[in-house]
Amino acid sequence: MIGVTGKFSRPDLQIAQLPDHIGQSVELRGAVHALRDLGGVVFLTLRKGDGAVQCVCDHAVLPQGICQEAAVKLTGTPRTEPRAPGGIELTVERVEILSLPAQPIAVPIAKERLNLKLDTELALRPVTVRNLRQRAVFRVQAAISGAFREYLDSQGFTEIHTPKIVHAGAEGGSNIFRLSYFGRKAFLAQSPQFYKQTMVGSLERVYEVAPVFRAEKHATARHLNEYTSLDCEMGYLDSFVDLMELETGFLRYCMAALKERCAKELALLGVELPEIGEIPAVPFEEAKRLASEAYGRPIRDPFDLEPEEEHLIGRYWKEKTGSDFVFVTHYPSKKRPFYAMDDPDDPRYTLSFDLLFKGVEITTGGQRIHDYQQQVEKMEKRGMDPAEFESFLMIHKHGMPPHGGMGIGLERLTMQLCGLENVREACLFPRDIHRLEP
Amino acid sequence: MIGVTGKFSRPDLQIAQLPDHIGQSVELRGAVHALRDLGGVVFLTLRKGDGAVQCVCDHAVLPQGICQEAAVKLTGTPRTEPRAPGGIELTVERVEILSLPAQPIAVPIAKERLNLKLDTELALRPVTVRNLRQRAVFRVQAAISGAFREYLDSQGFTEIHTPKIVHAGAEGGSNIFRLSYFGRKAFLAQSPQFYKQTMVGSLERVYEVAPVFRAEKHATARHLNEYTSLDCEMGYLDSFVDLMELETGFLRYCMAALKERCAKELALLGVELPEIGEIPAVPFEEAKRLASEAYGRPIRDPFDLEPEEEHLIGRYWKEKTGSDFVFVTHYPSKKRPFYAMDDPDDPRYTLSFDLLFKGVEITTGGQRIHDYQQQVEKMEKRGMDPAEFESFLMIHKHGMPPHGGMGIGLERLTMQLCGLENVREACLFPRDIHRLEP
Repeated sequence: MIGVTGKFSRPDLQIAQLPDHIGQSVELRGAVHALRDLGGVVFLTLRKGDGAVQCVCDHAVLPQGICQEAAVKLTGTPRTEPRAPGGIELTVERVEILSLPAQPIAVPIAKERLNLKLDTELALRPVTVRNLRQRAVFRVQAAISGAFREYLDSQGFTEIHTPKIVHAGAEGGSNIFRLSYFGRKAFLAQSPQFYKQTMVGSLERVYEVAPVFRAEKHATARHLNEYTSLDCEMGYLDSFVDLMELETGFLRYCMAALKERCAKELALLGVELPEIGEIPAVPFEEAKRLASEAYGRPIRDPFDLEPEEEHLIGRYWKEKTGSDFVFVTHYPSKKRPFYAMDDPDDPRYTLSFDLLFKGVEITTGGQRIHDYQQQVEKMEKRGMDPAEFESFLMIHKHGMPPHGGMGIGLERLTMQLCGLENVREACLFPRDIHRLEP
Repeated sequence: MIGVTGKFSRPDLQIAQLPDHIGQSVELRGAVHALRDLGGVVFLTLRKGDGAVQCVCDHAVLPQGICQEAAVKLTGTPRTEPRAPGGIELTVERVEILSLPAQPIAVPIAKERLNLKLDTELALRPVTVRNLRQRAVFRVQAAISGAFREYLDSQGFTEIHTPKIVHAGAEGGSNIFRLSYFGRKAFLAQSPQFYKQTMVGSLERVYEVAPVFRAEKHATARHLNEYTSLDCEMGYLDSFVDLMELETGFLRYCMAALKERCAKELALLGVELPEIGEIPAVPFEEAKRLASEAYGRPIRDPFDLEPEEEHLIGRYWKEKTGSDFVFVTHYPSKKRPFYAMDDPDDPRYTLSFDLLFKGVEITTGGQRIHDYQQQVEKMEKRGMDPAEFESFLMIHKHGMPPHGGMGIGLERLTMQLCGLENVREACLFPRDIHRLEP
């Protein structure tokens, strides 16, 4: 019988802890990120989960066979060195090899920028993500999803976990993956929409951070076929403006969290965090018209926003108010799903919004229908059969408060925040129409 | 243009805040959970996200048509009342109806226990989850996943999001859902195994809380075809014992968090949290033999544990040490996946473990192979083609530290903790061989 004491704690120091150990001999375990032989000494860059540190080694301390991407245990003394990246350098006393690669990586992952074609970078992602700049994006992403949950926890929301294999699509259309479920027809959830609305009837305010699946045939720089959605839904709205206030509150909290927790990563990526003051909120038609007039681009589709239009709307409000964000409200009813609440003042529009961040849509949200009769009528008007949605309509039938919510695309938010050109760069292992691997 | 100030904060008080407002008139929005006419006055139970409160109303303040599951805005004054559930009662001054149900719920959701057949309960889950006892399970569940992330954050882990549509299964076997991905053959991930190992090469310590999919044809009280896995993986292990220490540390943290955050829910469910001291860790063969000897049950399958055996092993160590938990270590190699590291002292066994909680397996974990040659050889010995796993083997080829990890079944942990009889009770919208809806 083995004793398990439960006294687990980090067996190693992390890079962030080194400043507390200046002048003391410490043990670090990590990967050899780079090796540079300067003749008299060798500079070894040790990579750990939270950063990298420059280590100076005599040739004598380096074991036979050491190479880039070896895993090592290293004993050394950190000291302040303004010329070293991060301001700390380690004088190495001992190096022990824990494991060795079978073959060197074909691309120079220790360079600051990889400068690979995106296709190559993604095909080699299992190893290119060891590049410090690359992985910094995913440390920022982790901080964003963490901040989302923390903020919503602080506002009385409860986390939920809802199924991804479903019997009916929430968002409609043909953009849905089909599968066979023990001989029955099933789908992959396009969103947790039905379930999060359902849980408002129980827990009042809920959120979920989980994958969603869209079988879209787009192959653009901003579409993924599987992405992580930061979803929330709340009951007892006064108006759908509450939801925009909630998102603004989250974004402010998120930027403060990133500033505190990801300073090193943001510096590495050259990211300046946006200031978030009052975010302008402009009705759909007005937003379209103002951008069209300002930049002389004619309106082609009166019911939807083309990517180029989103870009121009973002630009317009940036120029006018300095805000990187703009809410576009009151989307046309015919372009929103059957559960969206129409504006009682003009039912051609919905009580809904998208949030554009630097000209790219990162959020869709809005108030939902809570009245049973109203919901059934809207479905019937669209030629849908309410009987197919019986378990969803159960909540309306038996009473729902006024409610609404939103879904934020984690990868798009990460992309725009980090100034990336393609959403695939903000997704560890992206799925697109051509890509199912790695 | 609408002004969005970002000054969102809870527009309502929550139940937990009422003690701070004794004697003051407050506004609350919630659902009418129950209405009891006592002749002179009416007792209205108001349900909010975090609890329920008893409200005393004169007939005169109740609007026409008020009924169970109406959404209301209510003005009243909380006062201490030892006889009321929760010790607080509200004297109501005004009630406004926000929305009304179309039809009453057919089951008595305001009763303490629903006492429905499980099939009925699950079919009506969208509304039965409004029952206070039912939803308490999911408040506990949310606290568990929150505690998992918090504990791992504190230990230097980074959250990751990995794809669920994959090109190859990690766990092998036929228990995998297939789908067509733009004409290509694809699968639903049985676990994030390949991806979390991959990310150890970059971020050293990672975790993911996400759905996993198992096409198992079992219809037992402990199997789900889609469940939430609390996954983590870490580099630079000294031994696989580190992983058991990590899990013990998490469980202690989790129990402390539940005690603090879910006292009301635990009381409602009648749950007594387990004390977690040193958790016994017993090799597979010894665990099997001791339980067989103690309870006179012959060993039928020498390579796996039958559910009845898990139950008896749990019972044995509970009786012997008082622990509700027991690690069973060194599972036979032939029953573990190809990435499991064999014990160098006896390669018929692996450096792996399961954790049993009250006789039910809630975790599988272990050390993984990090050496390229060793991994390729083990695959070939099993008749697998390494070429099909090229993007996974990339990490071994180019260097991996000694590493390992585990996956904890969130619903099973919730079930055992809450003393439920069926794992479906611990899953909001369970998926099983017969159930794809709601």
